[in-house]
Amino acid sequence: MPSGPLNAISDVAGVTVGHATLAQDAIQTGVTVIRPHGGDPFRDKLPAAATVFNGFGKSIGLLQLQELGVLETPIALTNTLSVGAVATAQIRSAISSNPEIGRSDPTVNPLVFECNDGYLNDIQAMAVTASHYQQALDSAAAEFAQGAVGAGRGMSSFDLKGGIGSASRYAKIGGKQYCVGALVLSNFGKLPALTLAGRPLGQQLGPQLLALRQPPGEAPEMGSIIMIIATDAPLDARQLGRLATRCGIGLGRTGSIYGHGSGDLALAFSTAQTIPYRPQEALRQTACLHDSLLDPLFEAVADSTEQAIVNALFAAVTVNGRDGHQRLSLSDLAARLPT
Amino acid sequence: MPSGPLNAISDVAGVTVGHATLAQDAIQTGVTVIRPHGGDPFRDKLPAAATVFNGFGKSIGLLQLQELGVLETPIALTNTLSVGAVATAQIRSAISSNPEIGRSDPTVNPLVFECNDGYLNDIQAMAVTASHYQQALDSAAAEFAQGAVGAGRGMSSFDLKGGIGSASRYAKIGGKQYCVGALVLSNFGKLPALTLAGRPLGQQLGPQLLALRQPPGEAPEMGSIIMIIATDAPLDARQLGRLATRCGIGLGRTGSIYGHGSGDLALAFSTAQTIPYRPQEALRQTACLHDSLLDPLFEAVADSTEQAIVNALFAAVTVNGRDGHQRLSLSDLAARLPT
Amino acid sequence: MPSGPLNAISDVAGVTVGHATLAQDAIQTGVTVIRPHGGDPFRDKLPAAATVFNGFGKSIGLLQLQELGVLETPIALTNTLSVGAVATAQIRSAISSNPEIGRSDPTVNPLVFECNDGYLNDIQAMAVTASHYQQALDSAAAEFAQGAVGAGRGMSSFDLKGGIGSASRYAKIGGKQYCVGALVLSNFGKLPALTLAGRPLGQQLGPQLLALRQPPGEAPEMGSIIMIIATDAPLDARQLGRLATRCGIGLGRTGSIYGHGSGDLALAFSTAQTIPYRPQEALRQTACLHDSLLDPLFEAVADSTEQAIVNALFAAVTVNGRDGHQRLSLSDLAARLPT
Amino acid sequence: MPSGPLNAISDVAGVTVGHATLAQDAIQTGVTVIRPHGGDPFRDKLPAAATVFNGFGKSIGLLQLQELGVLETPIALTNTLSVGAVATAQIRSAISSNPEIGRSDPTVNPLVFECNDGYLNDIQAMAVTASHYQQALDSAAAEFAQGAVGAGRGMSSFDLKGGIGSASRYAKIGGKQYCVGALVLSNFGKLPALTLAGRPLGQQLGPQLLALRQPPGEAPEMGSIIMIIATDAPLDARQLGRLATRCGIGLGRTGSIYGHGSGDLALAFSTAQTIPYRPQEALRQTACLHDSLLDPLFEAVADSTEQAIVNALFAAVTVNGRDGHQRLSLSDLAARLPT
Repeated sequence: MPSGPLNAISDVAGVTVGHATLAQDAIQTGVTVIRPHGGDPFRDKLPAAATVFNGFGKSIGLLQLQELGVLETPIALTNTLSVGAVATAQIRSAISSNPEIGRSDPTVNPLVFECNDGYLNDIQAMAVTASHYQQALDSAAAEFAQGAVGAGRGMSSFDLKGGIGSASRYAKIGGKQYCVGALVLSNFGKLPALTLAGRPLGQQLGPQLLALRQPPGEAPEMGSIIMIIATDAPLDARQLGRLATRCGIGLGRTGSIYGHGSGDLALAFSTAQTIPYRPQEALRQTACLHDSLLDPLFEAVADSTEQAIVNALFAAVTVNGRDGHQRLSLSDLAARLPT
Repeated sequence: MPSGPLNAISDVAGVTVGHATLAQDAIQTGVTVIRPHGGDPFRDKLPAAATVFNGFGKSIGLLQLQELGVLETPIALTNTLSVGAVATAQIRSAISSNPEIGRSDPTVNPLVFECNDGYLNDIQAMAVTASHYQQALDSAAAEFAQGAVGAGRGMSSFDLKGGIGSASRYAKIGGKQYCVGALVLSNFGKLPALTLAGRPLGQQLGPQLLALRQPPGEAPEMGSIIMIIATDAPLDARQLGRLATRCGIGLGRTGSIYGHGSGDLALAFSTAQTIPYRPQEALRQTACLHDSLLDPLFEAVADSTEQAIVNALFAAVTVNGRDGHQRLSLSDLAARLPT
Repeated sequence: MPSGPLNAISDVAGVTVGHATLAQDAIQTGVTVIRPHGGDPFRDKLPAAATVFNGFGKSIGLLQLQELGVLETPIALTNTLSVGAVATAQIRSAISSNPEIGRSDPTVNPLVFECNDGYLNDIQAMAVTASHYQQALDSAAAEFAQGAVGAGRGMSSFDLKGGIGSASRYAKIGGKQYCVGALVLSNFGKLPALTLAGRPLGQQLGPQLLALRQPPGEAPEMGSIIMIIATDAPLDARQLGRLATRCGIGLGRTGSIYGHGSGDLALAFSTAQTIPYRPQEALRQTACLHDSLLDPLFEAVADSTEQAIVNALFAAVTVNGRDGHQRLSLSDLAARLPT
Repeated sequence: MPSGPLNAISDVAGVTVGHATLAQDAIQTGVTVIRPHGGDPFRDKLPAAATVFNGFGKSIGLLQLQELGVLETPIALTNTLSVGAVATAQIRSAISSNPEIGRSDPTVNPLVFECNDGYLNDIQAMAVTASHYQQALDSAAAEFAQGAVGAGRGMSSFDLKGGIGSASRYAKIGGKQYCVGALVLSNFGKLPALTLAGRPLGQQLGPQLLALRQPPGEAPEMGSIIMIIATDAPLDARQLGRLATRCGIGLGRTGSIYGHGSGDLALAFSTAQTIPYRPQEALRQTACLHDSLLDPLFEAVADSTEQAIVNALFAAVTVNGRDGHQRLSLSDLAARLPT
């Protein structure tokens, strides 16, 4: 399947991504924001659904998402202990645009996903503030950095440097082409399991990493991965849940077994139609693809998720963090290998 | 809220109900079929969703219903041990109209709900056959009997005779009137819990029933209730799941605590739009009510479910079954009360 | 069923409750904390499970609760927009006792439930801070106030003053007596629906409230109810989920239809056994009641939930809040009725 | 991870498997039964849980399994349209051993999984009868055939012959060794997706199959896969659900994307402890592994599922079925390849 011109989630028209990166000494963390469209998602909500592969996680916002099938804020990613700060920032941001929230309008449902970057980052410092959320939101653009940036700054993957990765695929259904974009916050996996395009790369690299005195961790994995899917295909929330489930296929291809300590979640949303926050008209006209035609989208989700994980590894740079901890990037590891 | 002219599920245009009743000696059982529209639901599927309050039950068909959000056969009700026979009959019936099922078309998803009528009925005899399903299907009409008929023949409720009950309500949304119809197969409850319109009737009737040497059972409840909601309001499967959840409110009002041994399930479907089995067009236009407007439908579901349960009690006649077991009808009990 | 000596959730041995109440001018809000035992729940986790009746809510912590079946912090209740602040406070509190959280130990899963108190409280002010959480935690005791206190300060119920309510029941199983305690944060319902012990009190009170120029709101409900169940019965997480589901019965008895805009959730936990945070031994011995014996507990849950909601109404005092908004207490309303 | 001596699900002590195979002309189908222990599972139930990856399926028994967390019959596998017949046979078999079923005992919950073998088998003939179930049950043994036998007789996988496959792995936790066994009914996949040990074998074989005039189907997949996991590790139902979820990893490794038309389900059960059907004692003592130690079991589930799928392909023989349809076995295809 072909990729889009950016090979990123922003190949889905209207989707933009921004980062705020904190990278000083023991503070190696940040915020990444995905804006699902150029407007205000509280006013023009988007159909969305999530799938939980392993629920060792502290995300906020999934309860209402499951009931109502919509997202109504930008999607924020950050470290585990900063979910509260970012959720509060999302609320303030939504109120500033919609002053009747919590008055004549309902409250707003913040949507924040997280991974634990505590190996590199002094996560107990809770360094992320509302201004970082705002900075990430304001800087959202179709072109955005990947790797050790934003929420990905302190993340580890396969005992190497992980972080933000993205990819996209085009699928054809009924003569029409739809775009599927994936963005991952990749923070999972032990090196021996790393699999690239079906090859057990991790087993080959393990001894090399060991020779560099960076032994693959023996501690149980305490990672996570967040996988976000955007598409311009017209789908309702139930169908988007089916798409989100196929992120697990892409994740599995890279070597994951949904480890006990890994919060493995996926969310899919569609930009094809929005739902107004106030029911100007009782009946909303909408369109959906027939379920029997979804296989190309499922394949696009699996492929773009897999590639987004790989892209996170390739885009990341080596990061030094708290207490002398270091995560080598995949490219730095390759460069140091004996020739 | 006003009821429809029939005060039955068939006030939702197109919905019809038929029974096959087996009532001879120890065989007190049957089949009830709800046809969701006049056509073939395999070809023109209906959005639908189910809610499980207590899953001590053996129904078939909910797995695919949850994935795809549609029903594709008539809804069948019968006794617990006859689910297999009725599911097989549904399959044969669908094949006879659609000879490509299991060949170029996918297989068909039978949808059979059940309660345990073993107190009155020799349930081990498995007396229900394919012909009973066909008979119920063929006799489906807008006007139908309630009480100790069809699948309700052998059912008990509150230590009295239970069975089939139905009711309907009209709800207004956005200037338009929608119909909500309920049909229950009522087979749950111990007499002391019976509550009618908020009054603890069961506690008053208990001593009377005892005086008639029909002690309210001491055995744990092994009942169930199946609650089916039809509506002509345009809703998708997610929204119909929200409606089905409100059946629990109506059920609770009559005294249920969702007992351990009671399989308490609800299913809601909408007749407003159908989904073709083959994707003639990739995109399907549809319409949905705005979620924020659903409260009148929720109330209609709760009220019609509650009244359907009460109607089952009032419509039922006393039935004598296996091994000298008898269930008095509520009206016969009232008639025998000392004046 | 008999109540315990306190008729409160703290009749379950070891359970304590504390409040921090903010009540000045337009700020009418607070925090309530339930401590499940006297120790540190991060180290000695408790089996727990939640049930969602209507997911229009912003609680945090349910994702991991569902995966692992344990709670590991005190249970916090607050207003909708303060979930982030209280979750952050919970994290800091857990770290102060467990400095390896996010380092050699996994991160901690904060558990915060919320209702929208925006009618009385200037919810946009987000006045709740970490110190309020700490204050509520530190003041936790077996004897605690109910009504317009803590998280209940600004809550409304049935167009009257709602808030915190609690109750308990004893159930006998296998010759042994178990305690079930309920605590609710009650913020739901329109007056016409109010039902007390089966009587439609709301329909009688409606005109009286109107005569006092406090018309029952015409705006759609934007409330919620949080229902917490504690028990000393030995149950695993799956069984506790079955208990939590019966909170819906108690809620329904008071007149709820699980309104669209009402976040209606229940959580149940057991104090009978704890799970250590580190696997000192690979195998954990445990004990569970047989599922077929749970009906008395189900009934105790329904009854104590219903009474806790009623107790919240009776315990509350009239509160004046932002912009001249007032919620009369049920007792003040009764006192003002013409004799 | 090492395999057990049989490299089959029956390496879990007490687990046995039997087949009834129907293979005459257009009838190419059957029944496979997994007996979880040597006794009567209605009397000694086993903790179990299921995970649904794609719910396009017609299995029966999952509703009660989810509520109560136990299986109480042998696990039966058959073709899609024979679920009713086999469920009825399971009920009769359980009654013959437990004559109070549906009388003083509750009804029994049949557990039947299915795949659609309609390409080779005249599935509309519904040739499977109660006697085939009994035959499979009676022949259950630790050593059993794989491939085109039992329920696997008519199944297709990757446009080749699929069917029954099995494998096992040992995992070490806390110094103790536990066995995980997998059995699959494999009936999914299009040839181009076939992946063996990470190699895209399907893309290499595609042209060869084409040259043999057996074009990989263009029709959408209408398959399914059922994955059954047995283990002797002491786990409760919630934990077994976590194991079942890891079957999706093994499935994904072979090339699946959980296609729209594929009913992809997994069930895991533990033989370590049983639950008596009558509560002789109210409290049941039990033991569970600490959740933080489960990763080796997760890996064993993924690995044994993957190998069971591969084993089904290697064990299968070429089968000719209805209307001249043929499915080549992988070995026959390899043999016919030009050297």
